[in-house]
Amino acid sequence: MPRVVVDVMLKPEILDPQGQAVANALPRLGVTDVSSVRIGRRIEIEFTGQPDLDRAREIADKLLANPVIEDFSIRVTEAGDAEESHP
Amino acid sequence: MPRVVVDVMLKPEILDPQGQAVANALPRLGVTDVSSVRIGRRIEIEFTGQPDLDRAREIADKLLANPVIEDFSIRVTEAGDAEESHP
Repeated sequence: MPRVVVDVMLKPEILDPQGQAVANALPRLGVTDVSSVRIGRRIEIEFTGQPDLDRAREIADKLLANPVIEDFSIRVTEAGDAEESHP
Repeated sequence: MPRVVVDVMLKPEILDPQGQAVANALPRLGVTDVSSVRIGRRIEIEFTGQPDLDRAREIADKLLANPVIEDFSIRVTEAGDAEESHP
């Protein structure tokens, strides 16, 4: 069943303290080659019928993202798509 | 510059109250054809050199996801890839 995925990320010019906290913790794990970590939200929307991108964009704009500080992108994926996943 | 994207979602059998709250709010927006909303995290990791998937998997496993209740998937994307995005 296809679903719509909405990715919401802070705009690049907005500070991301949560991501910075992760980045600052990495040297303690022995990781020194990471320059930046940014943390946002991923929302999966399943429709009863065909996925509706315009409807999803309206939902994202009104309910999921704060357009003052966040950007979002929308795409349709198959449930079992080709991303490398961890069981 | 390529970056590694880690998507962290609750396992399907774990209740997602945040997603349910969004799903329950949709009829008030006039949206009645959504069957499910699940909300997770999207983490973008930038490396100083080549993106390192194994390193990113280690970071995700130790720092970004709780493997008891969450699944994660990892992929490399170009910064300006072909997702439909909102300005």
